[in-house]
Amino acid sequence: MDLFAPVPAINQYLEDYLRATKMPANLRDAVLYAVMGGGKRLRPVLAWHSCVACGGDGADSLAAGAAVELVHAFSLVHDDLPALDNDDLRRGKPTLHKHAGEAMALLAGDMALTLAFRLLAEKSPREKVADLVYALSLGTSKMINGQILDTLGGFDSASTPQQKVDEVHLNKTGALIRAACLMGAFSADASDRNFAEVDAYAHRIGLMFQIVDDLIDVEQTAEHTGKRTGKDSEAGKLTYPAVHGVHGSRCIVTRLLSESLEAIAPLGPAADPLRILAQKMAHRTN
Amino acid sequence: MDLFAPVPAINQYLEDYLRATKMPANLRDAVLYAVMGGGKRLRPVLAWHSCVACGGDGADSLAAGAAVELVHAFSLVHDDLPALDNDDLRRGKPTLHKHAGEAMALLAGDMALTLAFRLLAEKSPREKVADLVYALSLGTSKMINGQILDTLGGFDSASTPQQKVDEVHLNKTGALIRAACLMGAFSADASDRNFAEVDAYAHRIGLMFQIVDDLIDVEQTAEHTGKRTGKDSEAGKLTYPAVHGVHGSRCIVTRLLSESLEAIAPLGPAADPLRILAQKMAHRTN
Repeated sequence: MDLFAPVPAINQYLEDYLRATKMPANLRDAVLYAVMGGGKRLRPVLAWHSCVACGGDGADSLAAGAAVELVHAFSLVHDDLPALDNDDLRRGKPTLHKHAGEAMALLAGDMALTLAFRLLAEKSPREKVADLVYALSLGTSKMINGQILDTLGGFDSASTPQQKVDEVHLNKTGALIRAACLMGAFSADASDRNFAEVDAYAHRIGLMFQIVDDLIDVEQTAEHTGKRTGKDSEAGKLTYPAVHGVHGSRCIVTRLLSESLEAIAPLGPAADPLRILAQKMAHRTN
Repeated sequence: MDLFAPVPAINQYLEDYLRATKMPANLRDAVLYAVMGGGKRLRPVLAWHSCVACGGDGADSLAAGAAVELVHAFSLVHDDLPALDNDDLRRGKPTLHKHAGEAMALLAGDMALTLAFRLLAEKSPREKVADLVYALSLGTSKMINGQILDTLGGFDSASTPQQKVDEVHLNKTGALIRAACLMGAFSADASDRNFAEVDAYAHRIGLMFQIVDDLIDVEQTAEHTGKRTGKDSEAGKLTYPAVHGVHGSRCIVTRLLSESLEAIAPLGPAADPLRILAQKMAHRTN
């Protein structure tokens, strides 16, 4: 099964939307550079397969998936800025602020975030807009909370290291992955029961995704991943391997994978793509 | 008539929302600093009186007005950043990045923008969310277009200076003022006809507001306005006085004021606050 078969449709949808929306040419180029510059499209693919798992047509998730991807693109552009990670390269190409300047990167990020909500209002069925905007804005605000905690602190003083790393991971990475799945379920008019099943799945794979990221940073070489590894521990970041150990983290990945599969067991064969995706996410090495 | 009588209710609504929404304490402080640090609340006040003008209860515009104000606050925080205007002071206090650092200012601006949409999804009547999100996201994306044109160019090459300055002003400042009025009208369940009347009014006062700003920068002293004047011409900005002359700009303000009043004539006495607001906006000197 080609889990990523929807990617060309997702890319076309995003590019069509950005080209049809009125913008100065320089801003459009910057937004296209940020949004169309590669990436696995994991979040729209999750929205697609969550929609299918709840009995919908995958194509009905395109607006939701594109909106989540615009938020993801915004977050990468702003995270790369000198004030935050100060990264020069992303996916082997200059980051947007290196390519087009800091002012443009700041405003293009703002534009991608704004267009995520505008796309939902323009392209989703009217009766679904409230749920989709709520899910996406909740996921985005949690993502920003996670980014603050990860880079600037601000934890409750009573938190243990275990609680802190869970709070960072569930917010910084997990919340937008969860939003993608929930928005896919909304796009399928999922029943409350199916919605709750997808939510339980999404919660677990969102956390799992970031734990696996942490493990890759510890275990893999830069040659294999194509990006610098070992930087979490250099930066003194709160990671799963640092808090739970490598073996402990692997065990937690295994548990989260099995719980995620259990959560969507009632969805039957329509959820097979979500099952295979979860397995791939657990076992990926780059 | 005290046009600004709704301000305490607007401030309370904003502060309650920001305190009730889960955020790390440092991020909450930064967002509160940006949002609650003064300002005339012109946009929520316009939303309130537009709602009243269309037969609604002003309090029904609070979610819409608060959302527009969150977008306005986000735009000020990001515009003040070193990558854009690099301003140290706003309303006599250190700008957010001077107060809390650039990383925090970047993320707090992102949070204010995200919460604008989340607030609409959480607090507006469900059947109005699609229209409100559309109006706000359209206004915000136009505002960003205007900021790009004003600072980084990107005009159609065939544009005349008159077309360019209109395009900057209608987008950079006018679009969010227009969104505020339209969202007020939506909040009142305005008829299509009343909606169009408020729209025609809002279009004109939005442009007028920025022309008056340009005139203040040329004509007033820093002592009177409490901020540095003459900086537009120093920066070589495209302004109405530069393109149309001071007298020509004053004439256009007078025409826009009279057209705005004409547009809402059919709304009767309920639109009196909008009339007085337009007159005050035309004649303000700081």
